[in-house]
Amino acid sequence: MSTVPADAGEGPLAIICGGGALPFAVADAVIRQGRDVILFPVRGWVDPEAVARYPHYFIDIGRYGRFHRQAKAAGCRDLVMIGTVLRPALRDIRFDWEALRELPSIIRMFRGGDNHLLSILARLFEKRGFRFVGAHEVAPEILMPEGAIGRREPSARDRDDIARGVAVLSALGPFDVGQGLVVAENYVLAIEAAEGTDQMLARIAGLRGDGRVRSAVGTGVLVKVPKPAQDRRFDLPAIGPATVAGAARAGLAGIAVMAGAAIVAEPAEVGAAADRAGIFVTGIAPDERGP
Amino acid sequence: MSTVPADAGEGPLAIICGGGALPFAVADAVIRQGRDVILFPVRGWVDPEAVARYPHYFIDIGRYGRFHRQAKAAGCRDLVMIGTVLRPALRDIRFDWEALRELPSIIRMFRGGDNHLLSILARLFEKRGFRFVGAHEVAPEILMPEGAIGRREPSARDRDDIARGVAVLSALGPFDVGQGLVVAENYVLAIEAAEGTDQMLARIAGLRGDGRVRSAVGTGVLVKVPKPAQDRRFDLPAIGPATVAGAARAGLAGIAVMAGAAIVAEPAEVGAAADRAGIFVTGIAPDERGP
Repeated sequence: MSTVPADAGEGPLAIICGGGALPFAVADAVIRQGRDVILFPVRGWVDPEAVARYPHYFIDIGRYGRFHRQAKAAGCRDLVMIGTVLRPALRDIRFDWEALRELPSIIRMFRGGDNHLLSILARLFEKRGFRFVGAHEVAPEILMPEGAIGRREPSARDRDDIARGVAVLSALGPFDVGQGLVVAENYVLAIEAAEGTDQMLARIAGLRGDGRVRSAVGTGVLVKVPKPAQDRRFDLPAIGPATVAGAARAGLAGIAVMAGAAIVAEPAEVGAAADRAGIFVTGIAPDERGP
Repeated sequence: MSTVPADAGEGPLAIICGGGALPFAVADAVIRQGRDVILFPVRGWVDPEAVARYPHYFIDIGRYGRFHRQAKAAGCRDLVMIGTVLRPALRDIRFDWEALRELPSIIRMFRGGDNHLLSILARLFEKRGFRFVGAHEVAPEILMPEGAIGRREPSARDRDDIARGVAVLSALGPFDVGQGLVVAENYVLAIEAAEGTDQMLARIAGLRGDGRVRSAVGTGVLVKVPKPAQDRRFDLPAIGPATVAGAARAGLAGIAVMAGAAIVAEPAEVGAAADRAGIFVTGIAPDERGP
């Protein structure tokens, strides 16, 4: 993985913001390095108050032309796309003329998996002279470190569960599915697909409530790894305090994500939340990834 | 797969019944062949009215000794175990003396996947001279045939989704997880683990309601295949009218299950329900199973 120093780009960094705290963590890290940022929050996905601290232009899905003009006028060449994305229904999008010209590509985006969607989106922007960079390239401090954040460490049994989870996710790698799953005592309780991590964790909490999880409260690990085919510029798995809260409600022992290949927006908050919940949050080191 | 003719056994066939219509479909098929059956419905899982038509003894999880005595006294040697199973919490089970002597084995059953659980259970019974037979061996008419039940057939796009589903489930085969998933336009929307098929289908319906499924209503297939490691004597995937209703609510085009390796309790009802819902239900032929 090559790293693009924040100051290697030309002009301010354009950050297309989805929901959650991640876009602001990236913006703050880039600003700390002395580079200007301009935020392009997607209307309806981003808290207007949180974005008010930064130079920004709200954007709308489908209004590609306007974004293009604003970003060019602001002197942006490098683009970061980060934050929670809600998949809009194609029929709900109102396109401007410039977006309409790209409609065949856009319609193709709405078929197939996320990797497919994002790679078409990237080509769309790159045709117009923008350059997509990964949030972790301009702000490497948002990447998960090796080992535990917070005080708790995984037990030997938790490590077995982590190894099994990594093996299952590796088997799913070729299929553009499954960035996450829950394993408890070697048994796969849930695999994440379109529903996302938070809903998967809520499902485990529900199954526990119904007595349909055999393993005791305090066993089981949420394991997240990036898909092998994933374009890491805009689709790294991410965890935050909400993930910790969800894992705790699901009665898990902890969370394991691939070190260096997952984003932790607020590591201090995540560690504190994990300590309060009595669970571990750990970055899987390369030697734990199995054969 | 060898077939055990119903009359090859000694004495009446003991059917340990979980929930749903399947145990009765098996019992009726065996009776049609001229063999007696004795049902052992698990208390709380089986409708007492439905079971009243058959000779039966209610049983309780953990009261292994009593079951053993009753089945022996009735002259049963062959056991079929069929129907919906609710996983009890170990702490909720009250054991009798004979079951307590097997406690180390029973505790091992509560760790690991379902295959593991069932193979230990089978050894427990076989040690006492019982013989486990598959429901599909004594009642082969309950197995899914090749091709469509009902009027609708999968389209070319549906067949692509089926092939992808079979490929993903094959990749998961080694891990004792995932007998089912939903693929729509080549994108895996959901993978089944501990929650079961019905809840997975309800999840898709919910994601559609939230606008989080990109593909249109009427696209997508529920694909079910047996796990490669599965002991088919007591853990074949099954579909029934409730599966059809769930797939219809999830806005799917249809259901595809491996022909000869999945149980259809009530094929006429399933076909009629599929026709009413406008979806297909098809048995995947060997040549469609991919490389």
